[in-house]
Amino acid sequence: MAQIEPIARMVTELSRLPGIGQKTAQRLAYHIVSMPLEDVRNLATALWQGRKAIRYCSCCGNYAVDELCEVCANPQRHTGEICVVRDPRDVAAMERMHDYRGLYHVLHGTLSPMDGVGPDDIRIRELMERLRAGDVHEVILATNPDIEGEATATYIARLIKPLGIRVTRIAHGIPVGADLEYADDVTLSKAMEGRREM
Amino acid sequence: MAQIEPIARMVTELSRLPGIGQKTAQRLAYHIVSMPLEDVRNLATALWQGRKAIRYCSCCGNYAVDELCEVCANPQRHTGEICVVRDPRDVAAMERMHDYRGLYHVLHGTLSPMDGVGPDDIRIRELMERLRAGDVHEVILATNPDIEGEATATYIARLIKPLGIRVTRIAHGIPVGADLEYADDVTLSKAMEGRREM
Repeated sequence: MAQIEPIARMVTELSRLPGIGQKTAQRLAYHIVSMPLEDVRNLATALWQGRKAIRYCSCCGNYAVDELCEVCANPQRHTGEICVVRDPRDVAAMERMHDYRGLYHVLHGTLSPMDGVGPDDIRIRELMERLRAGDVHEVILATNPDIEGEATATYIARLIKPLGIRVTRIAHGIPVGADLEYADDVTLSKAMEGRREM
Repeated sequence: MAQIEPIARMVTELSRLPGIGQKTAQRLAYHIVSMPLEDVRNLATALWQGRKAIRYCSCCGNYAVDELCEVCANPQRHTGEICVVRDPRDVAAMERMHDYRGLYHVLHGTLSPMDGVGPDDIRIRELMERLRAGDVHEVILATNPDIEGEATATYIARLIKPLGIRVTRIAHGIPVGADLEYADDVTLSKAMEGRREM
């Protein structure tokens, strides 16, 4: 034996997390074993209760605790602008910038024919329904500046154009190939400023 | 808002762990939110139930599930040798080597007058009781090769000598200043082989 069962199980579960290898998982497990019971309870509760509490906003698809997410439920937000992103974590990245006051639409994916992801697999239909129902005057396409993100933006732009709504794309201030989630606030701000007509 | 409460709480709790910064905690939290409920339950349960299940071996102070740890409870182990280490994780490191067949004694610390840790604060008294009671013929001091580890080894060696028991120190095969926990198996084996009389 090198590790007793409870520690081995912690290591197994922790090493399933992204970026946590076997050595890191071991280090974390031994740390957790040496933590006060109360602190471990808080950690485990935060993970489990947190995961249970999270659902998707019925309007934009962002993470939410209630029926609507904090952005959609906020009467101060401008309902005339919708920023389209791939993931809820991209919403968090945009919100960290504190510049944008409009709403969001989370696609939960990008078009990727190679992986069999077509227009019906991401929340494009829901976006079109929102646009037809509401008073939206601008849609900002903020998918990642990679091949799938660009293809998705182009596809959506073509669908929206006939509705007479302005469609913009965030500028390539974000290094091409990088992930929106990890962009710094200034770069994100620049990208929003330099958005161009599609 | 940048993150809703359940995610913010996950980030707070995760970033308390060693080596997990704010960005890593965020990445982990978003990953956990996107995991199936069942997997998150397994993770949270492994941490909490695992922590609850762990106690200290009443004999050697190693992590244990029962009254005795797996080493002390194993009748195949040689009761004539005791290897003294600082932490339970050092026992795990020694066990990974698969060479050593004796027992352990976990000090749960090292002497460190600067930090106010004296002989009564670590499990030296328990070690002496084991030595007086048993048939031990060799004590291998495997504390880390740093200042505190050396001082602790020297202190314990002086206490044991009068009992007529052989006291050895693992060789400095381990790079000085490094941590026993992270030593590779070969280095640990070499260190055990080259142990010298104290």
